[in-house]
Amino acid sequence: MPQHENVTVRLAQFIVDSRWRDIPQSLRKEAKRSILNHIGCALGSCRDEVVERALVVADRFSGPRVATVVGRPERLDILGAASINAMSSNVLNFDDTHVPTVIHPSASVVPPLLAWSEHRRVSGPELLHAFILGAEASCRIGRSVSPWHYSHGFHITSTCGVFGSAAAIGKMLGLTAQQMTWALGNAASQSCGLVESLPDMARSIAVGNSARNGIVAALLAEQNFTGGERAIEGTFGFARVTGQQADLSKITSGLGQSWELPLNAYKPYPTGVVLHPVIDACLELRSEHAISPGDIEHIAVRGNPLLRERADRPAPRGSGEASVSLHHCCAVAFIHGAAGVRQFTDEAVVQPAVLALRAKVAMTEDAAVGIEEAYVTVRTRSGASFEKHFPHLRGGLQCPMSDAELETKFLDQAMLGTPGCDAKRIIDVIWHIDELDDVAGLARMMVPAAL
Amino acid sequence: MPQHENVTVRLAQFIVDSRWRDIPQSLRKEAKRSILNHIGCALGSCRDEVVERALVVADRFSGPRVATVVGRPERLDILGAASINAMSSNVLNFDDTHVPTVIHPSASVVPPLLAWSEHRRVSGPELLHAFILGAEASCRIGRSVSPWHYSHGFHITSTCGVFGSAAAIGKMLGLTAQQMTWALGNAASQSCGLVESLPDMARSIAVGNSARNGIVAALLAEQNFTGGERAIEGTFGFARVTGQQADLSKITSGLGQSWELPLNAYKPYPTGVVLHPVIDACLELRSEHAISPGDIEHIAVRGNPLLRERADRPAPRGSGEASVSLHHCCAVAFIHGAAGVRQFTDEAVVQPAVLALRAKVAMTEDAAVGIEEAYVTVRTRSGASFEKHFPHLRGGLQCPMSDAELETKFLDQAMLGTPGCDAKRIIDVIWHIDELDDVAGLARMMVPAAL
Repeated sequence: MPQHENVTVRLAQFIVDSRWRDIPQSLRKEAKRSILNHIGCALGSCRDEVVERALVVADRFSGPRVATVVGRPERLDILGAASINAMSSNVLNFDDTHVPTVIHPSASVVPPLLAWSEHRRVSGPELLHAFILGAEASCRIGRSVSPWHYSHGFHITSTCGVFGSAAAIGKMLGLTAQQMTWALGNAASQSCGLVESLPDMARSIAVGNSARNGIVAALLAEQNFTGGERAIEGTFGFARVTGQQADLSKITSGLGQSWELPLNAYKPYPTGVVLHPVIDACLELRSEHAISPGDIEHIAVRGNPLLRERADRPAPRGSGEASVSLHHCCAVAFIHGAAGVRQFTDEAVVQPAVLALRAKVAMTEDAAVGIEEAYVTVRTRSGASFEKHFPHLRGGLQCPMSDAELETKFLDQAMLGTPGCDAKRIIDVIWHIDELDDVAGLARMMVPAAL
Repeated sequence: MPQHENVTVRLAQFIVDSRWRDIPQSLRKEAKRSILNHIGCALGSCRDEVVERALVVADRFSGPRVATVVGRPERLDILGAASINAMSSNVLNFDDTHVPTVIHPSASVVPPLLAWSEHRRVSGPELLHAFILGAEASCRIGRSVSPWHYSHGFHITSTCGVFGSAAAIGKMLGLTAQQMTWALGNAASQSCGLVESLPDMARSIAVGNSARNGIVAALLAEQNFTGGERAIEGTFGFARVTGQQADLSKITSGLGQSWELPLNAYKPYPTGVVLHPVIDACLELRSEHAISPGDIEHIAVRGNPLLRERADRPAPRGSGEASVSLHHCCAVAFIHGAAGVRQFTDEAVVQPAVLALRAKVAMTEDAAVGIEEAYVTVRTRSGASFEKHFPHLRGGLQCPMSDAELETKFLDQAMLGTPGCDAKRIIDVIWHIDELDDVAGLARMMVPAAL
């Protein structure tokens, strides 16, 4: 048998055998950063229409209401809460991104664990450890089928996320290696999600299912519900059916030595990634030259042809289009000195000052400019002209967001989506989560006291 | 735009526009036969280990317990009941088979409707109509991606069944054409199931999900949860992602003129299809020549090489292996004059008389014998020898099971799996279901009075 056969059993064994003391400090820290970023996104979007509508249905079928819906008064059973919280964290695509696969790993794994912590006593280290292992499972399985899987049309966050949820909850349950293998098989049988759904609310159903159904997969495995031994690598298993020339070695090479979470990135702005260097250039111009929006006569952006293709949108009609509008991004950056979630609400899109400044933005494409960089030139009424070159992708792996920037992003989202919750206290608890004997209190902090 | 683009919208429009008066009598009759066969299977297998274990988990998370679990005292919310009843009907693969696709269409569509009938008032014609439309949706979508989809590794009953459930419940909800389109999109986003899981319990999770998640898809669509317009035919939609050279015309050609349920077949025996002509030959020999098992010295079977490959299994170790054992099938046919569910229980496999007769069976392969036929020669102690050629597949489309045979199969399963329920009354209600104003009573009849 080739070296990388048997990957389902070997991955399961690794998850079962892993000990907290073997998890490096730097990895523990990255896990906290991922969770902080994830929860901020959920707090920010907990009143999104996707969440409102999904909640109407989930609420009708809830069993024991032990689990918190982030940012809201409703409570649901752990399956329902995991599903809805996965949706709210991911609906703007503002959550973490595992760079090699573009999986959003936290969306499928954190909500099940948060719900589980209200169902059974879970310590901080246990939660962090299970999250790290769950993300490891999702991302390694995702790597094995990348890049074909996603480019062919499988929505990789959902299709692979269900394995992460199953692994994390399986770890919580203390499954045997045999049961963990079955949990992965029970997850494979439920893997779903299509790229076609991405522009629609339906995208979020699959993301919610990945969180929910991983819990089901693990609980069934605990009942010795058999899931086979080769659910990933088998002739008709996940990797072969949804991958082309799948590389199974990605699942098991260096397990326990190299980890996936250090490849997790956080977005500074709730926009298409191609727009990030444009926003950064505008923000630096504004701050370095104290440019007031009323003084601006013209804003010229020079960037890669992909920038025009994706973001040449002078008159966005709402939040979604604004997040991929070059013109809107430049306008809000100069007007507000910020490009956070509140600069991309439907209300922000129709502000007269924003409309006026959007009309002054023009783009030139230049194949010599990389997709991770941008040039912005602003000309003022007084005839002055300032150019800024922003050379890299902030928030990417080369230039990660600092802890302080993640905190600012968190506060910004929490204040917008869940005013009244003690966002600073949540941040503090997350940074110190590995010192907690019981993390049940964390989920409850995500509901404003007034609700 | 080519003729067969836009199939998601057109299929949705057809489902919405369909009227009961346009459904031909013969189709209504076939729908009743499918439902009868389906419910018999669910009654027969409602105590299978798959059901027992899945129920432990489903029971913990049930919302309002309005819906019957077939054959059992437990009640669940409509999502949970739909899921569990789908599993019990299909776990032995003894339910209906849509011949062109090998989809088991009833498993995904009847359980949601049965549960729905306990949640809202549903008339018999409404239930039959929604079932016909749901099966039509599953099977047409399945045809569009066949045969590549299943042979590549997608478990077509589950992957396509979710569309049928969504269509059926969407019809119950009276969705608009726009909402029905979204319901299909919300279903596409949840489509799951791998062939690798077929030998394991995990297979049943996906079957259960197809029934459950179709309901969710329709209920979300009712909330205007958007599912896109091209979830099936889009570049990254269901047919292109999970099919190779998908034929979209199969979804819309002759909608309302040609129907899929007349291509639904019912298995007379709970065994691999290749064994059916062997069993029929044995049963005819036994009855025509009044052969007593004690008189038999040798049984020689001559059949297609595929028969040996699939069923040359002299010493099956349990129910599952017995259902694909040539030797076991011959033995029980001669001993019991039957090959129903009770001849394939774990107990039946270890009966001394069965063991003794299995040892006298031998097979010769002959490529000249078709896979739908078989020759059986029996030699008795007195030296007599009788040969029987059974030339076709009983229960297939050329030689369908009669209503009386379906009733016998139903009674056999009901008595085995759910002794104490009034099986004859259920049969009577199903044959007359189109005369009922309210079918809620049907589900409740499936629980023995003593429970």
